[in-house]
Amino acid sequence: MNTTRAIGIDIGGSRLRAALIDASGTILARCETTTLAQAGPEAVIAQVFDLVDQIAPKAERTALAGVGVACPGPLDTDTGRAMGIPTLAGWNDIPIARMIEAALGLPVRLENDGIAAAIGEWKFGAGRGLQHLAYITVSTGIGGGVVLDGKPLHGRMGMAGHVGHMTIVPDGTACPCGNRGCWEAYASGTAFGQRIAQSVGGNPKSIFAAARTGDAAALKLVAEEADWLGIGIANLLHLYSPDCVVIGGGISNGFDLLQPGIDARIQRNAMTAFRKVPIVVAGLGENAGLIGAAAMVF
Amino acid sequence: MNTTRAIGIDIGGSRLRAALIDASGTILARCETTTLAQAGPEAVIAQVFDLVDQIAPKAERTALAGVGVACPGPLDTDTGRAMGIPTLAGWNDIPIARMIEAALGLPVRLENDGIAAAIGEWKFGAGRGLQHLAYITVSTGIGGGVVLDGKPLHGRMGMAGHVGHMTIVPDGTACPCGNRGCWEAYASGTAFGQRIAQSVGGNPKSIFAAARTGDAAALKLVAEEADWLGIGIANLLHLYSPDCVVIGGGISNGFDLLQPGIDARIQRNAMTAFRKVPIVVAGLGENAGLIGAAAMVF
Repeated sequence: MNTTRAIGIDIGGSRLRAALIDASGTILARCETTTLAQAGPEAVIAQVFDLVDQIAPKAERTALAGVGVACPGPLDTDTGRAMGIPTLAGWNDIPIARMIEAALGLPVRLENDGIAAAIGEWKFGAGRGLQHLAYITVSTGIGGGVVLDGKPLHGRMGMAGHVGHMTIVPDGTACPCGNRGCWEAYASGTAFGQRIAQSVGGNPKSIFAAARTGDAAALKLVAEEADWLGIGIANLLHLYSPDCVVIGGGISNGFDLLQPGIDARIQRNAMTAFRKVPIVVAGLGENAGLIGAAAMVF
Repeated sequence: MNTTRAIGIDIGGSRLRAALIDASGTILARCETTTLAQAGPEAVIAQVFDLVDQIAPKAERTALAGVGVACPGPLDTDTGRAMGIPTLAGWNDIPIARMIEAALGLPVRLENDGIAAAIGEWKFGAGRGLQHLAYITVSTGIGGGVVLDGKPLHGRMGMAGHVGHMTIVPDGTACPCGNRGCWEAYASGTAFGQRIAQSVGGNPKSIFAAARTGDAAALKLVAEEADWLGIGIANLLHLYSPDCVVIGGGISNGFDLLQPGIDARIQRNAMTAFRKVPIVVAGLGENAGLIGAAAMVF
């Protein structure tokens, strides 16, 4: 029996991904599709089975160690249930782990997508070999996951690391979560995009491109985004004391441009003992969650 | 050999405490003195030996499991060294653990005072039996410690849980740490005292007393303090996902008055899944650090 392979599934609000992964973190087969986000959990789980059929035909499945599923929170990962996912219609109190386990006949581990990606980066990406790692993904929102003292942090209901929803401006800008002043409301790709739209126009990608040509307005927008990122990252340094902060998500494509501003803010906001912690770009890109989910099974 | 007793030492910027504790967390002997904070590490460590002589005479020491030392950070608890304690003059790169170990002939464990207090509350106080606990102490500053997934969080150099220095107002009020806008700069006993001094006069104790008689100005000041506390506590809920948040330190003497305002802010700032986490007052009072330090040795 070959227990050195596992399936990783990443259920996102826009993309659904599955991959067959070996114990060294290498992707052996991979496919993805657009999530039927409005069609309800049964339709999405049918999509999952379809992807799994493509990467690991039924006859080969008994040889696998299991299935790791990464999913947006809030989940109860102790019981393998989705508690109410904002980006997926109808996912309220759905026993995802049990449903997939029953259909595939393999053990299933469910994990918050931020924590799964942190595990991926820790085992096989930018945080390899470290004892302490904070991972953030900056795209539509800001998610995260933390490994401390050589173990992924879970907390109550596996909900530790909801870093995007720490308040950094009391009663500030409205956040999609319903509250005000969350880090996500200032530093997410969405927030960055809104500042861009309200000033010179364009989107994060076009602004990064313009900044690379030295465009002053673009550089100012990038500096502002970097500053908001730095404020939250400095908080994570004090709260978790990681060896390293790893940044993934779409906005990390401009990491080289953002890094000086992030570092400058950390030098201002962090106590001396926290100032030299490296802030680095993710090593696994959009596969961090997939790979981390599968890694949980090994 | 009786290995069910240990010595706990709490080295604070103002008070130095030592106690003999049994494995159930009961204090068998205790003494304290004013810390010679300006006299340098050797003078303070001589004070420690003097206290230890009082609670555990030399002849009895070989029967002990060891010594736990709680100390303000930043420490490197991996190597047992103080790296530069702001409230204690001259404590720069001092091998405290080794110095005490050499003199007493007992194994010594050094721990950040916030983490030690969290361990005390978790093992024997308000967080007994929980898997996940965030502890904060609100007095001169704001310190903290966290237990997650049944283990105290340490992070790099044992510095996790510096909760007082998360920024909650970018470029806001100056904090004693040298930065601006830290939670400590708004919600500590010192910050509360400054707001009191700048309005009706008095101190936190007198304002709590006046609030209990229904005094409107005092109630307003208490509500403001509760709101600042709630902002930071809501952040801790998202970042750590504890089963419970335990509040110690001098300001917790007014916890019954602060609780409604703290809860109201949490209802506004926290995502639904985090809103019902209990916020409670510490069970061990000023002995949490002492008891937690000793508990590490068992």
